[in-house]
Amino acid sequence: MSGLKQKLTLLVENDLQDIEAALNQNLNPHVEMVRETAGHLIFSGGKRIRPLLNMLSARLCGYTDEFIKKFSTIIEFLHTATLLHDDVVDNASIRRGKPVAHSIWGAPVTVLVGDFLLARALHIAAETENPKIIKVIAEITESMCQGEIMQLIKKGDIRLTEKEYMDVIQRKTGYLIQGACQTGAILAGAPIEVENKLSEYGYHIGIVFQIADDLLDYTSNTKVLGKAIGADLKEGKLTLPVIYTLEHANAEDRAWMEKVITDKNFTETEFEKLIQLMHDTGGIRYCRKVAENHIRQAKIIIQTFPSSKTTETLMMIADYTLNRNA
Amino acid sequence: MSGLKQKLTLLVENDLQDIEAALNQNLNPHVEMVRETAGHLIFSGGKRIRPLLNMLSARLCGYTDEFIKKFSTIIEFLHTATLLHDDVVDNASIRRGKPVAHSIWGAPVTVLVGDFLLARALHIAAETENPKIIKVIAEITESMCQGEIMQLIKKGDIRLTEKEYMDVIQRKTGYLIQGACQTGAILAGAPIEVENKLSEYGYHIGIVFQIADDLLDYTSNTKVLGKAIGADLKEGKLTLPVIYTLEHANAEDRAWMEKVITDKNFTETEFEKLIQLMHDTGGIRYCRKVAENHIRQAKIIIQTFPSSKTTETLMMIADYTLNRNA
Repeated sequence: MSGLKQKLTLLVENDLQDIEAALNQNLNPHVEMVRETAGHLIFSGGKRIRPLLNMLSARLCGYTDEFIKKFSTIIEFLHTATLLHDDVVDNASIRRGKPVAHSIWGAPVTVLVGDFLLARALHIAAETENPKIIKVIAEITESMCQGEIMQLIKKGDIRLTEKEYMDVIQRKTGYLIQGACQTGAILAGAPIEVENKLSEYGYHIGIVFQIADDLLDYTSNTKVLGKAIGADLKEGKLTLPVIYTLEHANAEDRAWMEKVITDKNFTETEFEKLIQLMHDTGGIRYCRKVAENHIRQAKIIIQTFPSSKTTETLMMIADYTLNRNA
Repeated sequence: MSGLKQKLTLLVENDLQDIEAALNQNLNPHVEMVRETAGHLIFSGGKRIRPLLNMLSARLCGYTDEFIKKFSTIIEFLHTATLLHDDVVDNASIRRGKPVAHSIWGAPVTVLVGDFLLARALHIAAETENPKIIKVIAEITESMCQGEIMQLIKKGDIRLTEKEYMDVIQRKTGYLIQGACQTGAILAGAPIEVENKLSEYGYHIGIVFQIADDLLDYTSNTKVLGKAIGADLKEGKLTLPVIYTLEHANAEDRAWMEKVITDKNFTETEFEKLIQLMHDTGGIRYCRKVAENHIRQAKIIIQTFPSSKTTETLMMIADYTLNRNA
């Protein structure tokens, strides 16, 4: 474990335990099979970054009520719902080092359990009786679906621009992380300026999170990552390192890349050559630079709050988001 | 067109036009493909019974605001979302006489567009800023998913009891229709007794609706029904006429039925023999009797309201629910 991860783990140990317990308590399925199917993915070692950001944001705004534990499950349930549907949509085979749910229970059950988790999340949101919170949660859900649909439509499109990519990742990943921070502040009854600050912090973290995820597909290995490396490209998912490299490679390399991407059945050697190209054109470096810029902005926001264990944790999460290895 | 349908159509003509316009206005997709995919099913001649019940319930409670048009789309969007996912789950091929969405756009897009419609519905509900309404809508959504999951788990189980069947249909169909009536009353600010009465009316209509639907699979024909007749049984979906007949057939017929149901690849002759058995054991008659009992109770509730065009329409809908041919 890296030093950063170790320090962060110590800081959030108790919160993570609370989150695990709350996820277990609030699933409340009428049908036991839902617990089994949903639980397979929910309790498979997710990092809980999203519910954690929700808790920390509320705490930073002075919120001390126990309800935050239950509330934070909204964020993880929404996240799990989209993962379940994503895996069906992408026909994935492993996730977090385990076979995906639909390979065990079939796509039908998996689709319906995903629906249940979406509904469960919105039901818990409704319990707050806070219209603003409910609206934010509903908007996040709507945005995530649209982001996924945009991504699906653009699959295999080698003309995908950086702007379109940013639009997709903000919708499919960014809004949920942003909303986790924002709803924490709303729940705490924070003034609008504070709510906006945390929302903006979440916005930056969301973008870093997805860029880091996309980078890992070209810089990690299958065992550490818990899913097949190169999977994005095999599915025709063009991410920032590829988009940048396509744009900055010379004509010959670009033509070769287009062939490899369109073909999809690339060999390991071809994939290695692609990664080399990403390094040579500066694609990997560029992605890190974009992410680091967002980390910097996220940290500046947190520095406007009085220093505390919570601000320290939020600063550390900003760094960890890019520098994780899975 | 039957006399009942003709009369009913005249009574609700304007409302149906308003519903069509509202569905079109409130889909609001960020991605145009969502409109195309969702619209394929939404605008394929649904009967709009659910949003209509919502409108009529609100009106019966004195609600006159235009917002009901937008609000009623929640109910139809939720309904459409479950149909889209159902068709993927059941691997259906036609619905309302048209090829199902996933046969045109593929299962991935269809799953995601279904998600979008769920989210869109909950987003519109959130706009009311009425915590009670939002809770009811969230609970309906949760129940529907669970009903679908229960149905899926019980597929092909020849020991399914009438009680289990009733539990499934109430969750997957009943709650939405009940909720359509109940939220109409809540939106109108009706007293709790009135809200409960309309909720109960919706409960009865919901059960009649599903029993009628299940009967049609054995009493209609493919052209009128807009989907393959006998499809329920082919999918292993045991409905009330089958459950009753299994229970009341003699040992020999029962054994034959079990074989046909388990086998699924029954011939047209076998299917006809099955329908004959349903008539002989009184299965069809029993289902109609159960439904008629619920219709009677639904009408008794409406008769407690001062007579008006709206009560007349709600009475007629109760009859139409069972006596429709598609």
